[in-house]
Order: sequence, then structure tokens, then C-alpha cells
Amino acid sequence: MVLVQSKKRFLQHVLWFLLLGSTSGVNAKQWLVKTPDDYNKAIKKVEAGDRIVLANGVWQDFEILFKGQGTLQQPIELTAQTKGKVIITGQSNLRLAGEYLVVSGLVFKDGFSPTGEVIAFRQNATILANHSRVTETVIDHFNNPDKFSSDSWVLMYGQYNRFDHNHIEGKSNAGVTMAVRLNSQASQQNHHQIDHNYFGPRPVLGSNGGETLRIGTSHYSLSNSFTLVENNFFDRCNGEVEIISNKSGSNTFRNNVFFESRGTLTLRHGSGNVVENNVFLGNGVDHTGGIRVINGNQTIRNNYLSGLTGTRFGAGFVVMNGVPNSKINRYHQVDNALIENNTLIDVTNINLAAGSDQERSAVPTNSRFINNLVINQDKQDPFNILDDVSGITFSGNATSQQTAKEINTGFSLHNSQLEQADNGLWYPTDPTLAELGASRSLLPIAKEQVGVTWYAKSNQFVDFSAGTKTTINNVEQLVTGLKNAERGQQFVLADGEYSLDKILYINTVVSIQAAHSGQVTLLGLRPVMFELADGGSLKLHGVVIDGRDAVDSAGNVLIRNTKLPTLQNYTLVLDEVKVVNLDVNHSFHVFDAGYRSMADLISITNSNFENITGDILRLNKEQDDLGIYNAEYVVITNSSFTQIEGVIANIYRGGTDESTFGPHLDFSHNKLSSVGNGKRNKSSASLYLHGTQVNNIVANQFENSAPVVLEHTVGEPRTTLINNQFSKTPEPVIKQLYPLSGAVLKMSGNTTQ
Amino acid sequence: MVLVQSKKRFLQHVLWFLLLGSTSGVNAKQWLVKTPDDYNKAIKKVEAGDRIVLANGVWQDFEILFKGQGTLQQPIELTAQTKGKVIITGQSNLRLAGEYLVVSGLVFKDGFSPTGEVIAFRQNATILANHSRVTETVIDHFNNPDKFSSDSWVLMYGQYNRFDHNHIEGKSNAGVTMAVRLNSQASQQNHHQIDHNYFGPRPVLGSNGGETLRIGTSHYSLSNSFTLVENNFFDRCNGEVEIISNKSGSNTFRNNVFFESRGTLTLRHGSGNVVENNVFLGNGVDHTGGIRVINGNQTIRNNYLSGLTGTRFGAGFVVMNGVPNSKINRYHQVDNALIENNTLIDVTNINLAAGSDQERSAVPTNSRFINNLVINQDKQDPFNILDDVSGITFSGNATSQQTAKEINTGFSLHNSQLEQADNGLWYPTDPTLAELGASRSLLPIAKEQVGVTWYAKSNQFVDFSAGTKTTINNVEQLVTGLKNAERGQQFVLADGEYSLDKILYINTVVSIQAAHSGQVTLLGLRPVMFELADGGSLKLHGVVIDGRDAVDSAGNVLIRNTKLPTLQNYTLVLDEVKVVNLDVNHSFHVFDAGYRSMADLISITNSNFENITGDILRLNKEQDDLGIYNAEYVVITNSSFTQIEGVIANIYRGGTDESTFGPHLDFSHNKLSSVGNGKRNKSSASLYLHGTQVNNIVANQFENSAPVVLEHTVGEPRTTLINNQFSKTPEPVIKQLYPLSGAVLKMSGNTTQ
Repeated sequence: MVLVQSKKRFLQHVLWFLLLGSTSGVNAKQWLVKTPDDYNKAIKKVEAGDRIVLANGVWQDFEILFKGQGTLQQPIELTAQTKGKVIITGQSNLRLAGEYLVVSGLVFKDGFSPTGEVIAFRQNATILANHSRVTETVIDHFNNPDKFSSDSWVLMYGQYNRFDHNHIEGKSNAGVTMAVRLNSQASQQNHHQIDHNYFGPRPVLGSNGGETLRIGTSHYSLSNSFTLVENNFFDRCNGEVEIISNKSGSNTFRNNVFFESRGTLTLRHGSGNVVENNVFLGNGVDHTGGIRVINGNQTIRNNYLSGLTGTRFGAGFVVMNGVPNSKINRYHQVDNALIENNTLIDVTNINLAAGSDQERSAVPTNSRFINNLVINQDKQDPFNILDDVSGITFSGNATSQQTAKEINTGFSLHNSQLEQADNGLWYPTDPTLAELGASRSLLPIAKEQVGVTWYAKSNQFVDFSAGTKTTINNVEQLVTGLKNAERGQQFVLADGEYSLDKILYINTVVSIQAAHSGQVTLLGLRPVMFELADGGSLKLHGVVIDGRDAVDSAGNVLIRNTKLPTLQNYTLVLDEVKVVNLDVNHSFHVFDAGYRSMADLISITNSNFENITGDILRLNKEQDDLGIYNAEYVVITNSSFTQIEGVIANIYRGGTDESTFGPHLDFSHNKLSSVGNGKRNKSSASLYLHGTQVNNIVANQFENSAPVVLEHTVGEPRTTLINNQFSKTPEPVIKQLYPLSGAVLKMSGNTTQ
Repeated sequence: MVLVQSKKRFLQHVLWFLLLGSTSGVNAKQWLVKTPDDYNKAIKKVEAGDRIVLANGVWQDFEILFKGQGTLQQPIELTAQTKGKVIITGQSNLRLAGEYLVVSGLVFKDGFSPTGEVIAFRQNATILANHSRVTETVIDHFNNPDKFSSDSWVLMYGQYNRFDHNHIEGKSNAGVTMAVRLNSQASQQNHHQIDHNYFGPRPVLGSNGGETLRIGTSHYSLSNSFTLVENNFFDRCNGEVEIISNKSGSNTFRNNVFFESRGTLTLRHGSGNVVENNVFLGNGVDHTGGIRVINGNQTIRNNYLSGLTGTRFGAGFVVMNGVPNSKINRYHQVDNALIENNTLIDVTNINLAAGSDQERSAVPTNSRFINNLVINQDKQDPFNILDDVSGITFSGNATSQQTAKEINTGFSLHNSQLEQADNGLWYPTDPTLAELGASRSLLPIAKEQVGVTWYAKSNQFVDFSAGTKTTINNVEQLVTGLKNAERGQQFVLADGEYSLDKILYINTVVSIQAAHSGQVTLLGLRPVMFELADGGSLKLHGVVIDGRDAVDSAGNVLIRNTKLPTLQNYTLVLDEVKVVNLDVNHSFHVFDAGYRSMADLISITNSNFENITGDILRLNKEQDDLGIYNAEYVVITNSSFTQIEGVIANIYRGGTDESTFGPHLDFSHNKLSSVGNGKRNKSSASLYLHGTQVNNIVANQFENSAPVVLEHTVGEPRTTLINNQFSKTPEPVIKQLYPLSGAVLKMSGNTTQ
């Protein structure tokens, strides 16, 4: 609560007292302020050694300019009356300007910054902060509700600043979470320290602009930054293909843990960086990556990487080709790289000379890959040699599987067992391997050692069976139940017909199940049956949905996202669902994605669809070709589609950006009959895929249907099209819109009639 | 405020007393209820003659089922403690079910119905209301925030019901405002009465679904309705092409006033209807129409129509061709129409045998057009004879101008002066014309005589000079000023540069002007400079906007609508504005319309645009081809465009529906140089127009630019393309997507080099 008080009472609320026993000297003052006005008066009077204390409570729309001249011995502090009890909400932010400033104990949540950053180490382009620190501060889901209005949560400027022990979680709008800026001389060679922070989950953004940490930009990448990034925990930082994007020189990344994070630590620009003692734990999660090496004089030492599934530039380990005489924003050649004593266990891909093409023809040179341990328990060779790698000396490494002949002289073959050490990491039992790979003294930092103790590192994932089961006997119970649903609640519908005269709003994670599969029929009367609010995820199981009583208007929709902007990714699951008679008028669709909504998963299994005048899945809301798409994973299996005028899935990912992994499609074991032939189906396809990155189209039967249309764009899309039957259906139309991008297409076992 | 109270206290809040002096008898009870719970208990106990009184206050989320069995002598009443002081808000509605029910005095606002209607004369498909009445009730902007979630405000079912003296204003979501349903025998031959209602402004919807009153549907149009619609005032009911859509037989429309309403009273289906004593006052407003005659046995008598500009089916007076052996949902032949004693003054178009084509070949037959007065002060003949009209007998009519030879024997030519009579209407001074045209005793109903006295019939329109002028000297003043702006406020910026680190939110009607044109520069730092909230309209005058300091991200936008759903139409005006250097990254647009936003007007005049990587106007948010577009009028004149990678205007109106008038484009006297050649300009056009209805492209100079691309769709689009110069620019590409729809294209005076 913001307390409003008059000018007269201001002095009464400012407490002056001596700070006994403090290093800041006997004249230091402490100001307890209760309103932004109080704060603004106090900040004008502070001197070195003073401390401003924000009173506990909620501060709404508070744009804090923390400006002052402290000294090494007498810094100026801004802190909370009780750490964690000062909540900064609404349109708020914090700028530091001056010397020796220390901020601590604040929580930014339930709002967003009205400017381009939440915390900036500067007042404006010329007045910066130096020797200043932000610590024990929380930024939690402080997202601009306009998801693609890009901003950053922390921008470091100046020199010798520190950002430590902070808790940063849930950035879901566009823009790098944190960046070190080098855009003037006063911010270069900065010697900043970024340590002991908790970089909590960042969801898949579905577009470029989802990095967690960036240091520099290509423009200033020949400058040294001397930034130290150590002892941070990156927890499921899944925004896009780069977790950390290093774009400057002489930085050190050490002792960080990357837990199940999609993407890589990328040494994109700048040279002379050190990456050591880091731990990457992929646990087999899709698209988890490790380290990507570009540019000169990079050292990659004593890192531990395991369970990383990533491919291509997002692989567990990548050494890139460069561009001869590269422009500053392209790829400088890898020269004098030292890659030693790293452990790579179950890393699916190690890509050398990656990105080799006409432009990127400068192979790695003068580099060493020594004393590394590469163990894949499935005995598959992870190395992909994509160009001449003779510029890399391989020696003293050990592997558990045969490697390619170009490099195998640098590897000894061992078949050692692995055992888990006290540090939680796995090491070979074979004593002859003791000096290879990462050190046994490597100690990955624990989640508990980063961030703050007083703010929980919890976060919620979609689990449709997490809540209680509630039996539903009529429409009113269902409407009321959904209104008050708890996360994970399961509504079990008794047999019978439910005539829905109201839209069902899904506000949290819920499932709606038939007590007996096929014995529950939902009849919708409105233009929409289900609307998913931001934060709503839905599973339907065993119900029949019949559109026969729907209002007679064009463009009805069975399920859709709210028309309001959404920040949270959602999941939609249909299992054993039967949908019939969506034909009261034209363009009656099953699911229509909201503008800039993002599904982590849409799954349709064991379901049947019949007599539908519209589309099944409309995941095509991108119009501006900025590479912003509507679903990361789409799974459609073991289902049948009969007499569908529109398309089964229209998935559109426009543009030419390569910063994302998805969309992914698994479409297999389905039967299609008379699908996609409606005159209003503009795509003229039964399945229209534009710019999807992974397509598995396997063992489907197409009859009397429009063709599959697949437009490969950028980013080495991978398509598997096997064992499908096409009866009275044209062959798939596959277009390579960017033929040089390296699409991979596997086709076999398909038949036509 | 809703008062929550326990069951125990219920009885204390119910007041019983005798209604003395009432017709309802000495045993009638009155119940004053203060909560929905109280109401629900009371309604179960009411008997004939009882009255339930809702306590004054705000009733939130109140779904009223008003069900009971009254009698002619002892109706059951539901009323307000004080009429106008009972406000029903949130998700609320009202259903009447039973006999002899009377509702009065309620106000529905600040909410919307959770079902498909606000007031329904039925409980469900089988339990209807008869002999019941809703009177003195207000429904004001009670709109579903999801604009295209279709609903209706009033649905009449049953028989012998009355809807009178109500105030209905501001429906801006899709769906007919009021309808009489005939979908079961119990609702046919209904003898409903709809009278003395104020049908206030309904804005242009920008799609089908914006009628104000519909009686019946094609399916039941051969049934008689016997509905009387009299003494209503239709004030700027501009939703779509039909103000009233009559789709049943034996209805009477009399003594209604249609004030500046776009569209017509259409006798779309059903026969034996009477239209008499109505007054249509167009005042020269675009697309104002009158009466459209289809089907048999229609009588059009003693109506007064003036200043109607409408064309085609939306003209001031239309007699259609029919389809031989027409299906019920097509056009039945006009047979035995009596059109007599109507006055038509300054009606631009009178279309006879309209719609004649291969299908609609059944010309009017056995009909009379007699004793009408047709006076056009500009001496232009309004009659358009579109097929054989020998089936209409013309006699005894008078005109002020020559008429076509097919019909001129039925007209005498007069040159009488007009004088205004006491009733406000105009009559010829020539006494020989006294018996022709509408009667002097015709008395148009006044606004004050309809609706209720206690609820103002005001409504707000966009006026950029309505408010005070405020001088602005710096960014902070501008941000704060806009935040607290009053409607119509004018911000006058002192000379200088304004570096905008925040988005400027436009919440109401405001203008931002340079104190000296060209001496004020706005520099935007954010991805967006101006965001128009719902209800926000903006005029910029005399400012320079420079994008040089914008954040380096793709897809920046200078001005856009909020990402939230909008219900209110808006206006955007740029006059003497210079926009330069929107080129920090690709796809930097000037204006981007919100999904399903609707501009009444976007005007760019006397302005210059230079170095822009995106588009100027993106009015293309329709993806589903339901005919929902983003702007009614677009005016771009006397402006220059240099080095624009994208398109100047992308206006998209999809689908094949013909229920709207727009979009309209006036593009004239502009200079274009290097426009539309960017590789990301998917339209490959300098001007891309799909489905626009009126295009004036006059006296522009195109140099080194992409072509104009114009795709005519349905609805007789009209395009004028004259006196343009195309230098090093391909000729316009004009596609007739529906060649039979009757596009009109005038081209002359264009040159190419």
C-alpha cells in the first residue's frame, strides 16, 4: 500500500539515527521512507554512507532514480525495511546513477517497466553507475503484457558493477533478460561481476529475442568487456537458441550450472574468453545444448556436459567455421582455441567445422582439443565432421566409441564404467582416465546457493492430474466448477447430454473427462465452446462434442485462446474425443490460436473428427513474418478425420530468423477421408506447414483429400515422410523456399493410388 | 453494490404491504429485494398482481429469470425502486417466461450477457413469454468485449408482447441489436408491438451482423408475423447495410423516423407488409438509404424520404428483381406492390428492377407507382431503370426533372419551390401538387417522445478541437498530460526535440500539435511511439517524427492500436507531419491496426514520409475471410512518400459478404518515389487493396515504385483511376476476383513512362 501524506508530515516520517558499529562512520544517516514522494525528497539529500530504507508494503508505479556519490568506504544504500517485504508493482523501474551505490532486498512483481528496462545501471546515455551493486533483489514475471513489446530486465552500464544473489524468473515477453552494454567507452573494459544469481525458468518465446544473458553486441565486439559470470544457476532458460550470447572479448564464464536449458552458451562475437568449470545437465531434454565456439583465442576448460540432445548450432558442443575476412556481424574464424579436460557424457552431437558453406569456409585453425573425455553410453559416435578439421590438434582424449578417422588418432578407446562422485557428477572408474575430462574437484553450484533465501524458487508446470476429481452432473455445475477451479482439477462428467448456453472459460490447468468414454455429449449453443484465458490449459478426455445446436453464424470456434494478450504458454490435449457436425455455417473451426499466443504442446490422440466446415488447428496468427509462431510441439496421432472442409493443421512460422527450435509436428497413424477440399480452404492443403522446423509425417492414410503442403524455410528443417498412403490424393507438395538453408528430407515407403 | 446477506435476514428485507388504489387488487404484494438471492426467493412466491421491486444500486452478475403467471387484470411486475437507479452490470441478462409480465425501469450497462441475449422473451426453447411487456428499460453499450462474439440485445418470442419506450444505444459487437423470432408456431402470428423506442447510434461494425432490427428469418419468412413497429426513432443506426431486415409477412412499419442512418429498411423476405408514414432524413450523409422492396403484396405509402445518398441496394428507394421460382432464401419477385403518395426529395438514387442479372430475372409485376413526388434540387434524374419495368404502372407522379422515357408518361414535370411546414418537412408550394407525395398531416416522432426521460440521449463523436489547449515544453509534461487528458484536449508542443523513452498512450480524443509546424521533432526510443487505447483517437499536426534513436529491433511501429480487444471505432489524422528514418531495422511500420480494430477514418494529408523499412498503413488484420475489415474511410492526399520499402496502404476486406459499405479509399495528389520495392513487401505493391468497395486514385505521381494492386471482390466495388503518372513503375494490376459482381472501373488520363 502506498501511503499518501502531506509535505508537512514528511519530516515526521524520516528517521534519523546513528548507525552504530557500521563501517560507514558515525555521521551516516538512515531514512525510512514510505512514499515515492518521500523517497524523492530523501534521495536529494543523501551523502556518502547514508542509507535509504523503503518501508515494507506495496509500492505502485514507482520509478526509482537512485543517484548519489558514495565512496568505497562509505557507499550509499537503498534497501528494504525487511528484505522481500518491499514489493514494487505497476509501472515501475530502477535506475542507478553515480558511484558506490548498493541496492538490496527489493521485489519487482505484478507489473512491468514503462521504459525499456527494469533495472538500469545508468540514468541516461551519459550519466552512468560505477562501482555499484544490485544484490538480493527479485524480478518475478515482471512482464510487459504486450508480449512482443521488447524490453530487458537488467541492463548493466558503466564499470566495476556487481549483480549478485538476485532471483530472476519468468520473463515471458520479448527481449534479452539481462545484458551488459558496451556502447560507449565508459562501459567497456567494465570488469563487472555477475554471480550467484538464480536465473529461473524462462519459457519458450516462440521467436527471436529470448536470450537470458547477453554481453556486448556485434558492433562493439572487438572491445574487451572483462566481465566475470560465475556461480550462477540457469534453470530451464528456454527462451530461444542462445542461453548466453557472448558478444565481446576477455570475459570469463565459470562455475555456472545450466540445468535442462534449451540452447547454448554461445561465444558469438569477441575473442579471448574463458569458459571453465561449468556444468551443463541436459537430462535428455529436447534441444538442450552446451557450448558453441566461434572467434579467436577462446579457452574451454574443465567443463562437464551431460545428457545434451541438441543438434546443429544448438548441439552439446560446436566448433564453427568462420567467414574469411568476416564482417563484424558475421563469423570470425576459430583460431587458437584451447579445448581441454572437458567431460561430455551422452552428448548427442559434437559438431566440428559446423556451418560450413560457401560463405563460412574458414575452417578452425591452430587449435587444440586435448584431454577430453567423450562417453556415449549408446555407443553412437557424437562427432559430426562437417569440413576440414586438420586445424584442430586432437590428442590425449578418450572415448567409449569409435570416432571418425579424421580425428581418431587423438582418442583412445575405453570401455570404462561410470560412477557418481560426491559432487553428483559421473566419472569413469578406470584409473587410467583420471587425468582426462573435468576435475573431480569440480563442484557445481546448487540452486540453494544462488538467489535469495527468502523467495521460493518454485515454478508451476502443467499437470492435468495434479488436482482433485470432481463429479459433474449438469451444465450449471460445470460452469461454476470451472469458474472456481483449482490448478490441476479434474471434472468428471456423468453420462448424458450437456447443452452449453454459456462459453466455458478455462482459467487454470483443468481436465474435463467423461465418466465413461463416449457416453458424454457436449452441445454448444454459443459461437465458442471453450475459451482459454492466460494461464489456462485444457485436457479433454472421452467426450463427444456435437455442433448441431450451435448458433447459425460463420466462423464459430470450438476452442480458442482469449482475445486478450497472453504471456503464459499453455497446453491443449484432446484424447479419445469425438467432434462431429461443426457444420451449421461455414468456417466452423475446432481450435483457433490467439494472436501471439504460444502453446508448449497441442496434442490430439485417439480422436475422431467428422463433418466440419472449418479447420482443425489454426496455428497461423503470424502476419508480419517476424518469426513469431503459435505452437512449439503439435502432436496428432491415431486419429481419424472425415469430411473436413478446411485444413487439419495450419502451422505458420514466418520470416528468416533462426533463433528458435520449433515448431515441431508429429503427425502419424491418422486416417483422412475427404479433407481439405472446401472452397474456402485457401491453403488447398490437408496439412499446411510453413517454416516448421521438425516434421514427422508417418504411416497416415490419405483418401480423397487435398495434398500435404510443406514449405521449408530457414534453419535446416528436418522432415520425415514415410509409410504414408495417398489414395485419390495428390502427392505432397514440398517447397524449398531457401534451398541453401540445408533442409533434411527423408522420404520412403509412401504409396499413391 | 450487491449486499450479501444471510438466509435468516431475508425475511427482514422483504416488505409486504397492500397496494392501495391499484388495479391489481387488495391482495397484491410488493417485494423490495436487495440481492439476487432475495430476488430468486421472491420470484418463486409471486402471484398474479404482485410486484417485485429491485432496490436502487448496482447489481453485478445478475441473471434474472422473471417467470410467473399474471393475468390481464393482474399482471406481475418487475421494476426499479427508482426508475434509472437500478443498474444491472457485469455478466447479466433477463429472461421473461409466462403470461402478463411487465418489466420496467432497469438499466443494463457496464457489462454484457453471458448468454446469446440480454433480454429474451423466453426461458428456453419451450417456455416462452406471452402478453408481456418490457418498457422504460435502458441497454447502453452492454457489449461483449470480444467484438465478434455475436449476441443480440433483445429477442422477442411468444405472442402479444410489447417492447416500448426503451433506450437502446451503442451496440458495437456483432449481432443484430433486436430480433423478433418466429422459429416455432408459438412465436408466429405474434402481434408483437415495438413502439416508442430510442434506437440510438450503432457504429459501423465493419462486417456483416450489424442490423438494428430483424423480424423473422428466411426459413420462417412465409409465416405471418403481424408485428407492429411504430413511433420508433432510429438515430444513426450505422451497423451495416440493413437498418431493419424484415423477413416475415404482414408486418406494419409506421411513423418511425430514420435519422442519418446508413442502410435501408429492407423488405427482404415475406409478403403483405405495410410501410407507411415513416420519415427518412439522410441529410446528405454517405450511404443513407430508404426502403428496399422485394416479395409480393407490399404497400409503401405516405413516407417522406430526403437527403439520401445511398447507391445500389442501399439507395433511397429500391424495387428489386426476383428469382423465378426462388428458393426461400433468395429473392421472391415483386408482385402487386403499391407505392403511393411518397415524397422523395434529394434522393440520389431510385433503383428499379435492381439486381437484374442471369439469376434475378423476374421483373416487378402487377405493381403501381402512383401519386409520388420526386424532387431533386440538383435536377439530376435519380431513376435508374435496370431491367424491364413495364410491370409497374406509373401514374399521377410529379417530378422536378426529366425522367427516362420508359416511365415518364407517369410523371408530370413541375418546378415548384419547397417550403418547410410546421412538422419540419418540406412541401411544394404549388397547390396543384397538394395531393401528391406524403401528407401534410404526417408528424415525425421526435427524439424526445421516445425512450425514457431520465436517461440522456447524448453520444460522443470525435472532435479534435473540442477541448482546451495545453502548452507542452518537455517529455514529462507530455506523458503526464496524455495520461490525464480530457476528451478533445489539444497539446501544443513548444519548438525543440522530444526524446520519448516511454510509449505515449492515447486514451481519449486528443491532438498533438507543433506550436510551429516543422519545428518540433519527436524521437522515439521504444518499439512503439503511440498506442491508441479503446476510445482513443489521435490527431498529429506539424510535427517531425524521426526514428533514428529507436531501439534496434525488427517490427517497430510508430503508431498502433492497443493489443487489447477494442469495441469503439476511432479516428487517426496526420496533417503536415513529416516521418523520417524508420530504418534502424527491418519492418519498421508507421501504423499497424489492431486485430479487429475499426477506424471510422484514417487521414493523411500534406505529409512527407522518407526512409522507412516497413509499411505506412497496415489495415490487413483479417485472416479468416469473414468480411471483417479495419477501416471504413482511408484518405491519403497531397503527401509524398520516398524510399519506402513496404506498402503505403494494405487494406484487406476478405470474404464474399455484401453487408458493408466500406472500406473506402481516397488516394490523390500524392508523389511516390521508390515505394514498395523492399524484399519483405509480400504484396509487391505500392498500394494493395483487396475487397475495398470505393477507390479514388487520382492525380498521383508514381516513380520507380511497385505497382498498385487492386483486387475487386464482391458488392459492385467502384474504382476511379484517373490522371496518374507512372514513371518506371508497372501499370496497376487490377484483378476481378468475382467478375460477375459488377465492379465499376473508370480509368482515364493515366500516363506511363
